[in-house]
Amino acid sequence: MSIAWTSRYALRTKGIKSSTIRELLKLTQNPEVISFAGGLPASDLFPIERFEEACQTVLERDAVSALQYGETEGYKPLRDMIARHTSRYGIQARTENVLVTSGSQQALDLIGKLLINPGDRILVEAPTYLGALQAFTAYGAEYVSIPCDGNGMRIDLLEATLRCGPKFMYVLPNFQNPGGTTLSADRRRALVLIADKYGIPIIEDDPYGQLRYEGEHLPPLVVLDRQNQTRSSTYTLGNVIYLSSFSKTLAPGLRLGWIVAPPEVIAKLVQLKQGTDLHTSTFAQVVAYEVARGNFLDEHIKQLRIAYRERRDVMLEALAQFFPSEVSWTRPEGGLFLWVTLPNSLDANELFQEALKQNVAFVPGDSFFAPNGQTQEGRRHLRLNFSNARPEQIREGIRRLSVAVKGVK
Amino acid sequence: MSIAWTSRYALRTKGIKSSTIRELLKLTQNPEVISFAGGLPASDLFPIERFEEACQTVLERDAVSALQYGETEGYKPLRDMIARHTSRYGIQARTENVLVTSGSQQALDLIGKLLINPGDRILVEAPTYLGALQAFTAYGAEYVSIPCDGNGMRIDLLEATLRCGPKFMYVLPNFQNPGGTTLSADRRRALVLIADKYGIPIIEDDPYGQLRYEGEHLPPLVVLDRQNQTRSSTYTLGNVIYLSSFSKTLAPGLRLGWIVAPPEVIAKLVQLKQGTDLHTSTFAQVVAYEVARGNFLDEHIKQLRIAYRERRDVMLEALAQFFPSEVSWTRPEGGLFLWVTLPNSLDANELFQEALKQNVAFVPGDSFFAPNGQTQEGRRHLRLNFSNARPEQIREGIRRLSVAVKGVK
Repeated sequence: MSIAWTSRYALRTKGIKSSTIRELLKLTQNPEVISFAGGLPASDLFPIERFEEACQTVLERDAVSALQYGETEGYKPLRDMIARHTSRYGIQARTENVLVTSGSQQALDLIGKLLINPGDRILVEAPTYLGALQAFTAYGAEYVSIPCDGNGMRIDLLEATLRCGPKFMYVLPNFQNPGGTTLSADRRRALVLIADKYGIPIIEDDPYGQLRYEGEHLPPLVVLDRQNQTRSSTYTLGNVIYLSSFSKTLAPGLRLGWIVAPPEVIAKLVQLKQGTDLHTSTFAQVVAYEVARGNFLDEHIKQLRIAYRERRDVMLEALAQFFPSEVSWTRPEGGLFLWVTLPNSLDANELFQEALKQNVAFVPGDSFFAPNGQTQEGRRHLRLNFSNARPEQIREGIRRLSVAVKGVK
Repeated sequence: MSIAWTSRYALRTKGIKSSTIRELLKLTQNPEVISFAGGLPASDLFPIERFEEACQTVLERDAVSALQYGETEGYKPLRDMIARHTSRYGIQARTENVLVTSGSQQALDLIGKLLINPGDRILVEAPTYLGALQAFTAYGAEYVSIPCDGNGMRIDLLEATLRCGPKFMYVLPNFQNPGGTTLSADRRRALVLIADKYGIPIIEDDPYGQLRYEGEHLPPLVVLDRQNQTRSSTYTLGNVIYLSSFSKTLAPGLRLGWIVAPPEVIAKLVQLKQGTDLHTSTFAQVVAYEVARGNFLDEHIKQLRIAYRERRDVMLEALAQFFPSEVSWTRPEGGLFLWVTLPNSLDANELFQEALKQNVAFVPGDSFFAPNGQTQEGRRHLRLNFSNARPEQIREGIRRLSVAVKGVK
């Protein structure tokens, strides 16, 4: 009796569909297609020479650390670096506040594994990052969505929404994926006070915070929350778990992200991570440390900011030039994405088919809404990535997309 | 109201204790200690020069593949290589049968996520690999244990045990961790027939299969099972999910393992892996491919076999020379571990404390039994690793351990 796996086991990927984005990425691998679909950083800006030097140094001086099993918490010099870096903004994180993860996607998975019981409600923004929905749904999460406007999450609606008793709030305050919006300073302060009042943790996902192209840096929620926790100078208390990543600043192929949290939370996450993958690749960690150290990463990020600001501006200019006036879009101050709103008469999924005929691609908006979170609204939106294509391709891609818009009108 | 995480959230690491082994490893980092505790391959045998060349080649020729996001299934040339390699033994695996994982620990986690609902019973060997217990317990697994003897799992007890309706059987047929035993050819054939008769899948975990130091290679369960599935020449049917890893043959710091399974199972695992870590480090995968390709990995494994056979033999000789006659041990034909049985009067946990005083370490046996699986029996055993220490250290370590044995007698 050979096993018919699917019928016998109802293989449980409950509520999990293959990521639309990752399936779309396969469609768009045709080199003729100009793709605004992925969230890929610019391949032409990877610091390849620095990686070559780092690999050589690591393998000459410290090959055993790089190739042998390591600690679940992460490579200590890298954790120290992350703690120092995070503390610049005033949260006094120490090494014991840092867990290195296999990309920040794994941070989302571990948080789901730790905090979510089947049926728990998670408060998310609408729209929100679909990778978080995938991670949380695997643990039986349900969702309550709160709409965003140009200043991020609508905090005025928050207290009413908290009546549903969410387990935590998942928030992307900077240059949100997919919306491109940034939570304003006032709303940040209001959010951490409400979280503290009701005792609801915040998961602050911040992969793009360093990629700001204009305007002033706003304090992360974890910093504002720490300013309210006066009882301790070290980071032992707090309502915020903070996530970030090297994927957008160094290279996503390393799969290196991190969690900053109170040590009691880190300790539990470490136990779960042991059973999940023992530890993140020491090879990737030691090389990343060697690449980033000194002042290199900061200097590299400055160059990324210049290049990505140009690409964003080219996209904004091309949209203004080519697109009909009834289409609108966000003007992100940083990050990798902008969010286009179509008139009611147009459907983003139909537009996607037409766009592929014109050899241009994007992600239709409905992927970015939780199951009960205005999926219909999603059909009026597109997410456009501006970091991966070169400026001349961006201009040509937006021209093609405008042809597609006119084709479905 | 700052969150007291543990009291408020009962942070759910249900049934998961921090791995005894990983905590022990911290105790044994004192350089004075000769450690037989970890499962570490020999650091002095890592092919460092080959890694240097591989990193250089990859970054010169194919940096974008190595540093950019990749496919969830894994780097295609590496999947092809794994499929070709696996097919040597006759299972006709193709690329679509292979999923690259972040170490084979992640393979265990994904299998737990896919197959285990809370309260499901999993059939395991007693003793068994404790990392599997950690991975499965996170999904609410319960266990039924089946004892092993010198020829591996007691197949004569299997059909009676299957009455409890296990979701799957988890088996380590080659040089089992921790027992060092190998499932005999007759038992392998009987096991796959019973699995087929009752429709119970087998998870075959085979990290050590290539590290055989004497005797003849025995066919993996996945091969024997395929020989029973006559309906298809390609690997679309089958009761066995096969796991292996580069951790013991190339370097554990890469965190690279793989799953071989029917494509419908792979497709579901891919969906779960997307939400878990998007994909395994492309950097580690592309470098590992470049290191392993041609005939390098096979030649390297030949050298490992010679070195590890010597270390095993030195340990066996030292045990025979120094240990009292009422202590016995397995004589593994391969792998990294042997399993010592103490007389009833001795307790492995007490011996561990005494051994640390003598600057030698091992893992007490009780970690390797499922919660209801003869934990008391575990206290009569020690797991000794013979791959990591050099021959002269092994001899001295066993001498010290014999002093500790006499100290607690």
